[in-house]
Amino acid sequence: MGGLFDVTELEEPIVQAPMAGGPSTPVLAIAVCEAGGLGFLAAGYRPADAVRTEIEAVRAATSRPFGVNLFVPTPRPADPDRVRAYLRELAPEAERQGVELGEPRHDDDQWQAKLELVCEERVPAVSFTFGCPTAELIDRLHRATIAVWVTVTSLKEARQARDAGAEALIVQGTEAGGHRGSFRDDEGSEGVGLLALLRLIARSVSLPLIATGGIADGAAVAAVLCAGASAAQLGTALMLAPEAGTTEAQRSLLSDPRPTALTRAFTGRLARGLVNRFLSEHTDTAPVAYPEIHHATSPLRAAARKRGDTDALNLWAGQAHQLAQPLPAGEIVRTIGADARRALAETRRRIDARP
Amino acid sequence: MGGLFDVTELEEPIVQAPMAGGPSTPVLAIAVCEAGGLGFLAAGYRPADAVRTEIEAVRAATSRPFGVNLFVPTPRPADPDRVRAYLRELAPEAERQGVELGEPRHDDDQWQAKLELVCEERVPAVSFTFGCPTAELIDRLHRATIAVWVTVTSLKEARQARDAGAEALIVQGTEAGGHRGSFRDDEGSEGVGLLALLRLIARSVSLPLIATGGIADGAAVAAVLCAGASAAQLGTALMLAPEAGTTEAQRSLLSDPRPTALTRAFTGRLARGLVNRFLSEHTDTAPVAYPEIHHATSPLRAAARKRGDTDALNLWAGQAHQLAQPLPAGEIVRTIGADARRALAETRRRIDARP
Repeated sequence: MGGLFDVTELEEPIVQAPMAGGPSTPVLAIAVCEAGGLGFLAAGYRPADAVRTEIEAVRAATSRPFGVNLFVPTPRPADPDRVRAYLRELAPEAERQGVELGEPRHDDDQWQAKLELVCEERVPAVSFTFGCPTAELIDRLHRATIAVWVTVTSLKEARQARDAGAEALIVQGTEAGGHRGSFRDDEGSEGVGLLALLRLIARSVSLPLIATGGIADGAAVAAVLCAGASAAQLGTALMLAPEAGTTEAQRSLLSDPRPTALTRAFTGRLARGLVNRFLSEHTDTAPVAYPEIHHATSPLRAAARKRGDTDALNLWAGQAHQLAQPLPAGEIVRTIGADARRALAETRRRIDARP
Repeated sequence: MGGLFDVTELEEPIVQAPMAGGPSTPVLAIAVCEAGGLGFLAAGYRPADAVRTEIEAVRAATSRPFGVNLFVPTPRPADPDRVRAYLRELAPEAERQGVELGEPRHDDDQWQAKLELVCEERVPAVSFTFGCPTAELIDRLHRATIAVWVTVTSLKEARQARDAGAEALIVQGTEAGGHRGSFRDDEGSEGVGLLALLRLIARSVSLPLIATGGIADGAAVAAVLCAGASAAQLGTALMLAPEAGTTEAQRSLLSDPRPTALTRAFTGRLARGLVNRFLSEHTDTAPVAYPEIHHATSPLRAAARKRGDTDALNLWAGQAHQLAQPLPAGEIVRTIGADARRALAETRRRIDARP
């Protein structure tokens, strides 16, 4: 499509991951854009009006392109019996935090209003998570000169997104922190590692790929570029930047060597976070029930956040979280870009030096 | 250590993975060595005398260095109650195959005899899986001019292997087919993706790293070299070579798009294979009990293999199994080496072309 934003035209091959629920802020997106990467706003969980305000804030501060991420609604409500059983299990957790659980409602996160918004605002790039937009919707976004990116976690999803007309694919490896962007959440709880997934997709689908999942330094960016990506998307690697809205509790834990795990315990959808008590105790029993469980645990997580109770919080983090640096976002982007170039040059030198 | 085999001196940055249980053969190792990579023999499950014969076969055909892989014994027998319960579950499987289950015995796979063997034979490189050899054992191997490599799946294991005196680390991502090489098998059932794991280890441990897990083409090799590896270890990517001992049943399934999963169902130790009926039905209940379950299911797997019953077989495969090519092993090694150089050159060109 002529005139659409093209990821290969960024100065740095770096895209900020949209991190819904706090870490993503307009100032973080602005800093990434100004450093030559692509900043992103996370529209998930936020009212459309609040997203509009954020888009305006980004536009007021930078003339560079940026992106907005939308959650594709879950088509059907979850099994109410399984939801009820899990809420019974969580009752002592609510008591511990001194709150009531929220209503386990099924909603669409203001899907239509947010689609209107991004079309009106002609946002340069809109990425989708949790599903593939229809060909009709993609056509409509194209008419608003919006480049459409779809998050995929398998070769099957990649082909579906290509066939629907996406410009580019965000290829999310199992290493990624936060929610897995799979189209469905009921197909096993393991994922494919980023490098294998990139190669499987690159060899079958000829679209620009943006690699994400556990990428935290220049050498890793160089690696995914070699593996066929046009850019790397960084999430956890930007969470310690002062521009990010990361809570203090989570900042203090990112450099901890503790492992991460995939869980539905906090939101009813598979997501990767640092292992803590809540995750360990509820992962085995949490149902496939997004956004119902997200809404139900919301007061509980808010209370835990306020109390700094990191045993009861969702501590989203990718598998390379220990490598995140507490530096300004622009400096992170420029340093990682320069280190990626250096890693490529050095690796070529090393391979040429072999007998 | 002066005089020890150094992985950076290989013509091609490619190491063959030892694939115990059939696929590894002396002719496969010889073909990889002659193409400029490092061939490997898999001593696991084999009597020491048979391994000696294989070493002699390799030495008779090539003057190049090669490696032998040993399984470190599990220190303690498994919980007998859990073993018994699982054997009761498997009784109908044995009946279906018309065999008796094997004795669930705990043994050390002729550990001492194999150590004597590699020392006598002065094998150039010996790699260890399922544990870290002691500093005393590593000293002894060094006196026989053997380079010691240790398979690691976490930063903690990498540090332990370095402190014990290993020359190099095989960094195994969760993408890898076959057994996970973790020192312990009771710490969760997820693994870290290769790229994140490489960066975590490369930034803390300054030893040569051999990356393994889901690597099946030149672009992936270029990627792991950028991420700090000195070489890539290929397993599944060599399983369709005519020199490999892969069964016909498994050959026919490797190009199938079916997913893989981690399971203890076949051997009592976590391993990745193509999803089939046996794996799906027994993964949730299989205990941590290696080698007991390996021995118990051995007659069952042999019968299924003979009958071509792929629903009851362990179909070890890494996450990029669809990319395996049915080519001679030497051609695979040379093509992947050349493609890795090309991927590095092209990636540099692309990044330099940015604005």
